[in-house]
Amino acid sequence: MSRFQSFEDLGGPGPVAARVAALRSALAAQGLAGFVIPRADRHQNEYLPPCEERLLWATGFSGSAGFAVVLADAAALFVDGRYTEQAALQTDVSVFARVGAGEKAAQNWLRGRLKAGDALGFDAWNHTADTVADMKAFCESLGAHFTPVAINPIDSLWTERPAPPQGAIVPRALALAGEAAEGKLARFAKSFDADAALISDAHNIAWAFNLRGSDVAHTPLPLAFAYVPREGRARLYVDADKITPQARAHLEPLASLHGPDWLEADLSREGEAGGRVAFDKATAPFLLIDAFRQAGGKAVIAPDPLTSMKAAKNPAEIAGAKAAHLRDAVALANFLAWFDSRPPGLTEIGAAEKLEALRAQDPTLRDISFPTISAAGAHAALPHYRVGTGTDAPVTPGLFLIDSGGQYEEGTTDITRTIAVGETTPEMRDRYTRVLKGHIAIATLLFPVGTTGAQIDAFARASLWAAGLDFDHGTGHGVGVFLSVHEGPQRIAKTGHVPLRSGMIVSNEPGYYAPGKFGIRIENLLLVVKKQIAGAEREMLGFETISFAPIDLRPVERTLLTAAEISWLEDYHDEVRAKVGPLVEGEVRSWVEAATRAVYQNSG
Amino acid sequence: MSRFQSFEDLGGPGPVAARVAALRSALAAQGLAGFVIPRADRHQNEYLPPCEERLLWATGFSGSAGFAVVLADAAALFVDGRYTEQAALQTDVSVFARVGAGEKAAQNWLRGRLKAGDALGFDAWNHTADTVADMKAFCESLGAHFTPVAINPIDSLWTERPAPPQGAIVPRALALAGEAAEGKLARFAKSFDADAALISDAHNIAWAFNLRGSDVAHTPLPLAFAYVPREGRARLYVDADKITPQARAHLEPLASLHGPDWLEADLSREGEAGGRVAFDKATAPFLLIDAFRQAGGKAVIAPDPLTSMKAAKNPAEIAGAKAAHLRDAVALANFLAWFDSRPPGLTEIGAAEKLEALRAQDPTLRDISFPTISAAGAHAALPHYRVGTGTDAPVTPGLFLIDSGGQYEEGTTDITRTIAVGETTPEMRDRYTRVLKGHIAIATLLFPVGTTGAQIDAFARASLWAAGLDFDHGTGHGVGVFLSVHEGPQRIAKTGHVPLRSGMIVSNEPGYYAPGKFGIRIENLLLVVKKQIAGAEREMLGFETISFAPIDLRPVERTLLTAAEISWLEDYHDEVRAKVGPLVEGEVRSWVEAATRAVYQNSG
Repeated sequence: MSRFQSFEDLGGPGPVAARVAALRSALAAQGLAGFVIPRADRHQNEYLPPCEERLLWATGFSGSAGFAVVLADAAALFVDGRYTEQAALQTDVSVFARVGAGEKAAQNWLRGRLKAGDALGFDAWNHTADTVADMKAFCESLGAHFTPVAINPIDSLWTERPAPPQGAIVPRALALAGEAAEGKLARFAKSFDADAALISDAHNIAWAFNLRGSDVAHTPLPLAFAYVPREGRARLYVDADKITPQARAHLEPLASLHGPDWLEADLSREGEAGGRVAFDKATAPFLLIDAFRQAGGKAVIAPDPLTSMKAAKNPAEIAGAKAAHLRDAVALANFLAWFDSRPPGLTEIGAAEKLEALRAQDPTLRDISFPTISAAGAHAALPHYRVGTGTDAPVTPGLFLIDSGGQYEEGTTDITRTIAVGETTPEMRDRYTRVLKGHIAIATLLFPVGTTGAQIDAFARASLWAAGLDFDHGTGHGVGVFLSVHEGPQRIAKTGHVPLRSGMIVSNEPGYYAPGKFGIRIENLLLVVKKQIAGAEREMLGFETISFAPIDLRPVERTLLTAAEISWLEDYHDEVRAKVGPLVEGEVRSWVEAATRAVYQNSG
Repeated sequence: MSRFQSFEDLGGPGPVAARVAALRSALAAQGLAGFVIPRADRHQNEYLPPCEERLLWATGFSGSAGFAVVLADAAALFVDGRYTEQAALQTDVSVFARVGAGEKAAQNWLRGRLKAGDALGFDAWNHTADTVADMKAFCESLGAHFTPVAINPIDSLWTERPAPPQGAIVPRALALAGEAAEGKLARFAKSFDADAALISDAHNIAWAFNLRGSDVAHTPLPLAFAYVPREGRARLYVDADKITPQARAHLEPLASLHGPDWLEADLSREGEAGGRVAFDKATAPFLLIDAFRQAGGKAVIAPDPLTSMKAAKNPAEIAGAKAAHLRDAVALANFLAWFDSRPPGLTEIGAAEKLEALRAQDPTLRDISFPTISAAGAHAALPHYRVGTGTDAPVTPGLFLIDSGGQYEEGTTDITRTIAVGETTPEMRDRYTRVLKGHIAIATLLFPVGTTGAQIDAFARASLWAAGLDFDHGTGHGVGVFLSVHEGPQRIAKTGHVPLRSGMIVSNEPGYYAPGKFGIRIENLLLVVKKQIAGAEREMLGFETISFAPIDLRPVERTLLTAAEISWLEDYHDEVRAKVGPLVEGEVRSWVEAATRAVYQNSG
């Protein structure tokens, strides 16, 4: 039923003990005391190709973040608070101790276990220079060594390891990209302080070269590296089989094409020539940096300037994002109307499948932008709940939360609605209304140029704080345009220390979670825009909401809203009705009209 | 007329050229290409003893922040935006170029001027290890040297240099301190990761040993160093003439007393013994760290844990601070009542003198906590305006701003009021009301434990942001208890990355400045307190306002205030009337009653 999302129960403890035993033999044969297994590929991607799921292979844990360390007589799986329960179910707890993934967690665990003279192995393709430097210093402080392996021992043991992805790469039309790749690359070549730069972030390759690929789920990435000299022709390192004829014609004037196997040797040659090359601090594999340095090169490790360049969207990208959001709004209206007269016995998977099917009616849908979080009752109290056949629950009275998005040719969406199912309790309505107040506070905020996400994050929380409540995630993340749904560097969060700039897209998703009971999140995407204010003395910014779906008014406690908040809600619903109404028909149009009626008619 | 504040026009260009010429000869004789002159003493104090005012001596500039570099054929005075105009008036601009004091300002200026082989001199008593490391690396990158001098060449040339201060040191009563020094020192001895710690921050010596001194203006500091071993007896390095008999009796069980001249040799001896000593990153003089290291010691440079320990006040300190604020409230009520029927021709100095005289009626006043900012008209648009005989302006129609505080035996105060003088313009009233809204937003905010000042600073600005306005200083700074009026580590500001803790005192002082026209600031001090909220799921904090003076309602634009804001203002004025009314008499009591009447009777 679902093309883009698997509800299979991935992983599990079954094969873990045998795999770890085999891994330990292989490590002993290589003289290694242990091995570090991050959840990472060569580009530090969020979604990994199946062939890079080594952590899942070794531990049975399928979560989106974590790492493991295997020693001869001990092993640990490090996961953050989101995944404590999942890790317990998925891994073999007789093999792996489960440890919180806080700062220095690996080092604290290794202290007393790693001995002087021990060699702890790692695959230098899957670690950045920062993590290697940190672990190297730690190991040396114990008299031990942090030692790169020539071949990842897991790859030798993993008999059914999938082949690397061969997703077709296509050029992105200039009308959608808004700027020719020539211009982007010329700007990029002036942005780094080195003779050349290596692009290792596949999102940045996609954006700079105006390409899209399909090597990983949910993000149209072409897995590739690029070497861009300050002057002269760029080199793209990519599997030739992935390059469509159109892409080849598009790339011809931009770069020479090389197989990925040539990259290490080419960088060594640049190193021998004494060059200075910039590497991305966040994604460049240590293996490449090290090869370049060993050959004599001077590596400049800094944030890739492309990350910041692509964050502020140009007018064509903005138009595309808005168009994609209208397409998505149609799917959402259809879904929400259907949900309100849902079939009896509907479950979380049924809802997710229906929403995907409605999105897929749009011919420009290419994927969903992440696995839909379809969460009934207490499941919604887990902000990152993943529904699977083993957890699938029926939609029951109370609140139902659905967080989803689409990858459309024109842009990427991400939207969360929390929907009343039958009667809601006063506690649910109070919390729902406070979350809504936080959402509106962000949506309506004006702020001067230079303001960071960290400075405004608390406006999403103040209404919860007033009641002694809070939520334990950031208020918003950056979003790409037919690229990653989680895109930096901007965030609305305690950690968002980058100024918000006109053209950036961020999510606005305050929430509230009552463990074991219910969960609430209300999410729209926002475009950062310049705001003209009569008499303003500063250059001001604000947000334009670009997601359009009714916000359920049934759980709203109207007396908690100010006149200004009610007015925002009325205006937003007027806009939803005006934009989405004409794009839907019949019962769905009637539903949209009813759902966007005046607040006082629908709320508590 | 004023005991605690000088209105003299300090500094000025007169002697600058001759002094710099003499300094250059002295530098040449010592083989130095130049010399760095920070505004700093051996403790990195905010207020310097007169004998440490070397920057003023050399440049004629009397501002509270800045530094200079003198080379053989060029010299520069580095000041921040606040002091651009003042520096132009005070220094000899034919000798000193005026340069903005941004990050790396000195290095940018020196690049191209300092040559390979040059030695740039500095006095290692007046620099921290961080600044020396930074400048040393910079000089070495040019092939030059950053060289400590044995004797500060300015001290040799400064014929009328005042003697070092000899302020009497007295013990602080346990009833005011709330914790015996033995207990504080025992807690401190467990707080650092070293064999011993050097306390170089004079505020921390005052707090840890329960002492107060009078070596600098406006802050009751005993200038001294202390060496505190993890086990065994502490050593206090202080001029014996400053120790009163009471202080000697108080200190006897706590520490052995030594002349300050012994400190360097004693640290060298600890270094020879191979000890690990903790030095305060913010204040420890490089000279002492270097002497210790050269002798073989291992220096641990980190924030002094005492800074954080003294920031959260104990119940006795809180009681003292509140009592001091009531004493100050009486002075403020008397002043504000007097100001409203002020004598004709009143000037800024006249107002400051009157306020000081009214404060001095309290027998426990020991000093004012900083030079009063008494600012009429456009002067108030300079947030750090210092009134002097050369600038003294009459109080004219519009807004008058007065920012002042007292050092009472029991505590330290800091309060700003902006007062309508005759008619105010709609623009003034709009701005005044927005500043007031920001003040109320902070005063009423609830937030969970762990929240930093940086996360809440924007609540003070949102009402200005909504109109395209802002102010260019932090919302609040920490305040001590009969100690510094500017005390870290907490701040409500973009840079306030320390969580606010129960017992901390911070100022709440949003403002608005219209250059050349007027300025507004409304400041109370806040105590961070735990808040009990029915149904709360998090440990919550909030603020208790501890300054009590009517907020002028005449410039309030009532229609801009929400019902909740008006209610806060009514409640605050009720509290002012209840607390201060009984402490004043006659016309002043009538004035307090009128000034705290219902908002709708007094506002616009």
